[in-house]
Amino acid sequence: MPALYPAIVKPTLLLDEQAARANLHRMRLKAAKADVRFRPHFKTHQSIEIGEWFRQEGVEAITVSSLDMAEYFTSAGWRDITLAFSVNPRQIAAMDRLASRIRLGLLVESEEAVDALRDGLSHPVDIWLKIDAGTGRTGLPWHATERIVALARQVNGVPHMHLCGLLTHAGNTYTAQDGQSALQIAAQEAGRLSALRTSMENAGLGRLLVSTGDTPGCSAAENFPSVDEIRPGNFIFFDAKQASAGACTWDDIAVALACPVVALHPQRGEVVVYGGAIHLSKDTYFWNGKQVYGRIALPPRENSGRWGRPLAHSYVARLSQEHGILSMPAEEIIHLRLGDLVFILPAHSCLTAQCMGSYLSLVGQRIAMMPANLPDEVIN
Amino acid sequence: MPALYPAIVKPTLLLDEQAARANLHRMRLKAAKADVRFRPHFKTHQSIEIGEWFRQEGVEAITVSSLDMAEYFTSAGWRDITLAFSVNPRQIAAMDRLASRIRLGLLVESEEAVDALRDGLSHPVDIWLKIDAGTGRTGLPWHATERIVALARQVNGVPHMHLCGLLTHAGNTYTAQDGQSALQIAAQEAGRLSALRTSMENAGLGRLLVSTGDTPGCSAAENFPSVDEIRPGNFIFFDAKQASAGACTWDDIAVALACPVVALHPQRGEVVVYGGAIHLSKDTYFWNGKQVYGRIALPPRENSGRWGRPLAHSYVARLSQEHGILSMPAEEIIHLRLGDLVFILPAHSCLTAQCMGSYLSLVGQRIAMMPANLPDEVIN
Repeated sequence: MPALYPAIVKPTLLLDEQAARANLHRMRLKAAKADVRFRPHFKTHQSIEIGEWFRQEGVEAITVSSLDMAEYFTSAGWRDITLAFSVNPRQIAAMDRLASRIRLGLLVESEEAVDALRDGLSHPVDIWLKIDAGTGRTGLPWHATERIVALARQVNGVPHMHLCGLLTHAGNTYTAQDGQSALQIAAQEAGRLSALRTSMENAGLGRLLVSTGDTPGCSAAENFPSVDEIRPGNFIFFDAKQASAGACTWDDIAVALACPVVALHPQRGEVVVYGGAIHLSKDTYFWNGKQVYGRIALPPRENSGRWGRPLAHSYVARLSQEHGILSMPAEEIIHLRLGDLVFILPAHSCLTAQCMGSYLSLVGQRIAMMPANLPDEVIN
Repeated sequence: MPALYPAIVKPTLLLDEQAARANLHRMRLKAAKADVRFRPHFKTHQSIEIGEWFRQEGVEAITVSSLDMAEYFTSAGWRDITLAFSVNPRQIAAMDRLASRIRLGLLVESEEAVDALRDGLSHPVDIWLKIDAGTGRTGLPWHATERIVALARQVNGVPHMHLCGLLTHAGNTYTAQDGQSALQIAAQEAGRLSALRTSMENAGLGRLLVSTGDTPGCSAAENFPSVDEIRPGNFIFFDAKQASAGACTWDDIAVALACPVVALHPQRGEVVVYGGAIHLSKDTYFWNGKQVYGRIALPPRENSGRWGRPLAHSYVARLSQEHGILSMPAEEIIHLRLGDLVFILPAHSCLTAQCMGSYLSLVGQRIAMMPANLPDEVIN
């Protein structure tokens, strides 16, 4: 096989399939051992082909973040999909069409949403009550028991809406700086949901499931007491933020953006690469007292295969539309030449994958993703 | 014509063609009056169709930020293109193919880059020396006269490389909080280039052009002393950052992201919309002491036509992959219902357009853009 890297001419998202499959296998085993359902979130990879790796691990039920994504994975034979996004009333007709083909789970957090679904759906759907267990994004506050009980009763009153349980996104585990904090936040939020479930069951609402799960919490935990289902997504690739927060090792990171060097500024301690906001996204994480867009690794000597470990004291300091400005020690810059490739381990792999729209495996195979933000007239 | 907004079901980038054409006409007239060449940057709109509006204004020479973009606009008949990005040595073969078809301008900032072009090009190209006039991204520092003179001589020694002059991106005008500061920064950088040119002409390098231009500086200025060419891009759409910094009025902003409301949290002073980082980008600007992702406007009463002015005290506070969390006063939230559309005036329209991949005009016409980050095997 010819060396891969000489053929790369512009920013390219490399995917280490072996690392991704190992991440997947580990998380699937963990869920099995802990006896929770594993319903991975596919918003990270957004790829039918990568979805097949999950199927090979026995996964049958998945999570997505948009109706377009639900339709895309339905086209590849997935038949049990939770659309983990509070119902958008403007897409109910399309949800109803999808519900005629698959087992579709939807999230509600208000009376208005239930009314809209009642009026707009003719096919059965699973309903999850979206609970805000502390993150402050969407959902009914976990302590608003009365409102939540009332909403559950409203759902139970609609024949084609099957109430499954309580769902949360413990998104504030992403603020944790280490595994122990992530574990505590996730456990606290699961505890809140579990207490809420008890109140609801005491109110005569029958058996309800608790669905939670986010990569930092699921990576830190070995057990998921009082949780029935976990929905992590990012773990398939991980990223620099997750490695920094102890959710994975640097060797677990499965994607890196290969970028050609276009300018060397050793006197500034900076290197400019072709690879900017439109490739990496402008997401950052907090590292060494700074907001950084990613860390830097070098290609292996063989000019093929997996990138190296992140260089000490090196990070993506600034991004403009197509430029990345890397802060690097002079003793690293001295080894670089114009046109060399460097690898950026992104702050947030989900958004980098979304920007790039496809992957290149380490054996030079192109892996497609769902097209980004296709206009309606094309999707529907 | 039926009302436009009832047909929108998911995040959609609206384009007010009339506002965009007015922005274009104004900037073109300004350049003509100031007697500078107008070579607009097409990285903002990235659309062949919008490019035609420029052609209708008499524009013949353009700027792009990637080779893919140069190829895309070449396919639409553009024949004089500056690729305003320090030469990527890995793409020289493709640059050479393009140079056989069009007048292609390239940027160099090092001896290595000139060597690589000398060895790799067989067709004539225009060469601009990339000067860092204070921004600190790419380019030779404006005060490094000796190195710049040596580089110019090296270029002059290569028969198919035609030295045009000095080019800078006065990118730090984007840090200006008002028009006067932008004007001063732009004038200071133009002054540095002009002084450098004099030194170079005194060194016997012949007549050299100065190319500069960025939206904040070009919006603030009426004249461009000692500048031969301006290359603004963002001005075609502007955005919330530019309006805040005084580069445009709110009525000049030509794009807005229409987003369905999916959750109302009046007790938190927040509204959640379908519209997140993958639609808006995670770019921010500093407003009222906060980093914000954009401002909020409402649709017109007629349910068609241009959005309103930005609501006071309202802004996009947080973004996750598909969610936008809007901070709004309770007295605004009270008028909203689930499924209503709100319009986000993005912090940075270039990146929002890149995320969205197409526009919808106010008369319901879809306007295509260049495909984002196409892999090589497709582009070449």
